[in-house]
Amino acid sequence: MLTIGVDVGGTKIAAGVVDEEGRVLAHTRIDTDAENSEMIVGGIVQVITGLRQKHEVGAVGVVVPGMVAPSRDIVQFTPNIPWRNFPLAARLAEYVDLPTVIENDANAAGWAEFRFGRGRDVSHMVLMTLGTGVGGAIVVDGHLLRGAFGAAGEIGHLKMVPHGHYCGCGHEGCLERYASGQALTLAARHRAVTDPVGSARLMELAGEGKIRGPHVTLAAEEGDPVALEILEELGYWTGMASASLAAVLDPELIVIGGGVADSGHLFIDAVRDGFLDHLSARGYRQEARIELAQLGNDAGLVGAADLARV
Amino acid sequence: MLTIGVDVGGTKIAAGVVDEEGRVLAHTRIDTDAENSEMIVGGIVQVITGLRQKHEVGAVGVVVPGMVAPSRDIVQFTPNIPWRNFPLAARLAEYVDLPTVIENDANAAGWAEFRFGRGRDVSHMVLMTLGTGVGGAIVVDGHLLRGAFGAAGEIGHLKMVPHGHYCGCGHEGCLERYASGQALTLAARHRAVTDPVGSARLMELAGEGKIRGPHVTLAAEEGDPVALEILEELGYWTGMASASLAAVLDPELIVIGGGVADSGHLFIDAVRDGFLDHLSARGYRQEARIELAQLGNDAGLVGAADLARV
Repeated sequence: MLTIGVDVGGTKIAAGVVDEEGRVLAHTRIDTDAENSEMIVGGIVQVITGLRQKHEVGAVGVVVPGMVAPSRDIVQFTPNIPWRNFPLAARLAEYVDLPTVIENDANAAGWAEFRFGRGRDVSHMVLMTLGTGVGGAIVVDGHLLRGAFGAAGEIGHLKMVPHGHYCGCGHEGCLERYASGQALTLAARHRAVTDPVGSARLMELAGEGKIRGPHVTLAAEEGDPVALEILEELGYWTGMASASLAAVLDPELIVIGGGVADSGHLFIDAVRDGFLDHLSARGYRQEARIELAQLGNDAGLVGAADLARV
Repeated sequence: MLTIGVDVGGTKIAAGVVDEEGRVLAHTRIDTDAENSEMIVGGIVQVITGLRQKHEVGAVGVVVPGMVAPSRDIVQFTPNIPWRNFPLAARLAEYVDLPTVIENDANAAGWAEFRFGRGRDVSHMVLMTLGTGVGGAIVVDGHLLRGAFGAAGEIGHLKMVPHGHYCGCGHEGCLERYASGQALTLAARHRAVTDPVGSARLMELAGEGKIRGPHVTLAAEEGDPVALEILEELGYWTGMASASLAAVLDPELIVIGGGVADSGHLFIDAVRDGFLDHLSARGYRQEARIELAQLGNDAGLVGAADLARV
């Protein structure tokens, strides 16, 4: 059976027809306005209708950047789209006569990675996505961990530092403030101010604008020592959080994805260092592997399409 | 079917015959020497043999204070008994002709609390036991979370403070250093040194000896402000860790047990404060309840006896 996965972002809706092996047979994408809820609902209907014209599909999985009820039909909360307890599945059912489930973006990406990517040979896996924020997905014994209220896997809000940096969630010291793209950008700008000589290459890459995450990745790939140090520090925090996750969940594999990890092995080596420096009972336990994600930007829609089958 | 639960501690072996409702129908207990592995094996056989004389039982669950392989037959590591990858189930099978499983102590206690105690009406639960160390058990969708290698639920090794207090695990800043009985004792002794006037009641209770955890609990129950403050700080750390666990696991219920929680509501109120002060997406999510454990010292053997059935 073919299914459709729809990935709803802040500025675009991507969708694809996905087969049982996780291959995307057809792809479409439209721009949208995150502030306009009706426009997003219309956009989702539009991409589904378009894809169905050439493919026989049996179900739809829609990925949203927010919290989803365990019943997989209601969007509880999205920070960047004005949805609060929004009955998205019911709204779509007015226009689309297919079984439809709603999934959290990180959960869907993690499921894709588990089914078709880096985790396809394991049963216990954690995905950490280091993007603008930090998201996560947890697979326990082959099942996606949703939690009692649908909010499991919010790894970005592990408390790392008492009275640490303020977080967008209203609290302090969350992992998201130390390992996200936002953290990368802020760390680089802080460094440019406190160490302008060492940060010369970063400032050159930024030109007239401000330093952003991709400038750090690029400079690090060129061997710039300050950029390397900034990335290594983010990786080390990610590794420390991975050790906490290993203490609680004991996974076989921790997969690291998202733009912050774009520098690849350069970043993942620092994650492994931080992990092994903080893993309890090391030497008496088997250690989780830490690997880069394999799937790219389609992971969310592929995961949702697959989750729509079950 | 009746089963036997055996709880192996550092200085004693407790055992009981347990029915399907978690009731202990018969109880026995012997002293033992943690340094002598053969003596412990002999002691386990002795209590099982004794209990079988008056009860027909179908299986045995043995609780050990350490890490157990997911196959539930081998003790991988016990900090206080010289067992390293010790085939305890096979050793017992030389003397006892009953199916026998080995379980981690916190996991067994958590399972008992889930089946017969505070968690009997929920599907997603976390137990935190604040004893000499900090242990934990996680129930996901009605199943005990064991992890890929049998080491899940080691909540005491959540990283709470970068470069924080040294932990017995060899690392730094683990929850165990901030919320265990050891932490309680050390915090009270520190307070006695830095604030001898305020700590007068604690020092009086300790008399000729050193201040210990029960002195703090007793003084707090009397209303001693310093003892209350020390307990509240431990509770607050426990609550902060609970918020991290809620971010990752999203349980319906977090149960707090162990000697540190002996002061009851006095302690649990501080845990709830710390939890709500650090729970991400508060207001947009349903919140886990935080409650005191219901079962006492028999929780481990009751849980192991029940786990021996499945």
